[in-house]
Amino acid sequence: MMEKTSIGWQKQPSKLNIQGEIERAIKDITGEEVELIASGRTDAGVHAIGQVANFKTSSKLPIEKFPIAINSKLKKSIRIQNAEEVEERFHSRYNCKEKTYRYIINNSMQGSAIYRNLEYFIPIKLDVEAMKQAIKHFEGEHDFKGFKASGTSSKSSVRKIYKTQIKQENQRILIELTGNGFLYNMVRIIAGTLVDVGLGKIKPEEIEDIINSKDRARAGKTLPPYALYLVEVKY
Amino acid sequence: MMEKTSIGWQKQPSKLNIQGEIERAIKDITGEEVELIASGRTDAGVHAIGQVANFKTSSKLPIEKFPIAINSKLKKSIRIQNAEEVEERFHSRYNCKEKTYRYIINNSMQGSAIYRNLEYFIPIKLDVEAMKQAIKHFEGEHDFKGFKASGTSSKSSVRKIYKTQIKQENQRILIELTGNGFLYNMVRIIAGTLVDVGLGKIKPEEIEDIINSKDRARAGKTLPPYALYLVEVKY
Repeated sequence: MMEKTSIGWQKQPSKLNIQGEIERAIKDITGEEVELIASGRTDAGVHAIGQVANFKTSSKLPIEKFPIAINSKLKKSIRIQNAEEVEERFHSRYNCKEKTYRYIINNSMQGSAIYRNLEYFIPIKLDVEAMKQAIKHFEGEHDFKGFKASGTSSKSSVRKIYKTQIKQENQRILIELTGNGFLYNMVRIIAGTLVDVGLGKIKPEEIEDIINSKDRARAGKTLPPYALYLVEVKY
Repeated sequence: MMEKTSIGWQKQPSKLNIQGEIERAIKDITGEEVELIASGRTDAGVHAIGQVANFKTSSKLPIEKFPIAINSKLKKSIRIQNAEEVEERFHSRYNCKEKTYRYIINNSMQGSAIYRNLEYFIPIKLDVEAMKQAIKHFEGEHDFKGFKASGTSSKSSVRKIYKTQIKQENQRILIELTGNGFLYNMVRIIAGTLVDVGLGKIKPEEIEDIINSKDRARAGKTLPPYALYLVEVKY
């Protein structure tokens, strides 16, 4: 499990990326050119605090030493939290059973200076009870075609959401979604749609219809990535 | 009450500072050149999330509109949380009864990527029970001459600490001190001394003697400012 902030996962030429940075650190430690496979990509700016990735190595370094060794070669915006040995055919992406994302909204009057890059600030008081009703309509298997970035191709836009939750912690609203997978921008669009519910622009009972319409224009806007956290990946 | 991050309070020529920034914003709103008086200075890098400051104005703008108006003229690293009218002779510094500071230690194995600039990371497991015993010895009125930055002049180094507390939240250790005032670097040196206790370098029962020695060399090191929060100021 690793934790990273503000940088996209996938290798991109001449851009800072998590995959490339960790592969370079592993090479520094083991001398090997490895391919690091994550549970999936994260958009640039999303905090992948529960990301999981695997690689193959012949290194004799004890497994429990890997986090400290790799972290010593990484910038502090990327931290390996834990390492464990897995069977050879383990694959972080293919074997992934479920992922949990969290979107953090600061719904205070003035926002926070300190966490300004870690949460989405909206000063207009949201109707959290309506949002709690609305989020339940996302549970189950749906075609989320209307909840992905327009122009992105992916074979199927059907995904299953196992669990949804909205928590309130003082003036913060935490939106949590657990599913078998999420489309590009999907959580950020769901969060944007729930904010519209909180603002009274969309009624909770309209959500089902909006999902079934498969129409991106009927869902809410894509909220910014810096308030989104990939918190857990399960196998 | 305001919240700010990473910038020292006091006006310094050609440096970003909270006082100057807010005075400029107030001038943008009211047209008046005001003098903003805070409860006290904070070191550069300390997060003054509970700072209180006052100024005099003849503006007809309703008091409840001030935070929004001033925030609209400030960079997002400075946020006014609240504003209220006080009697004319109120003085944020002279009338201050007590202040509460919090120092946040991340005592996990690998630290956090996301909060790396908001907490002090120490991977060696600290003995929190010993730290809890030790912090009690700071309570009461003491001459804290050994717990201030060397070379700083101030009339008296006697301060009274009303309340101390160490909280554990998962892998974080929160050190909290409430007192009638704190010397320059005092909380950061107390936190450094408590870390030495947690590491077994200093015994809890030695604290009293270290305070009484008034010897800066016997206290722990000055921990970095970015993990320190001025959380509350009371009148």
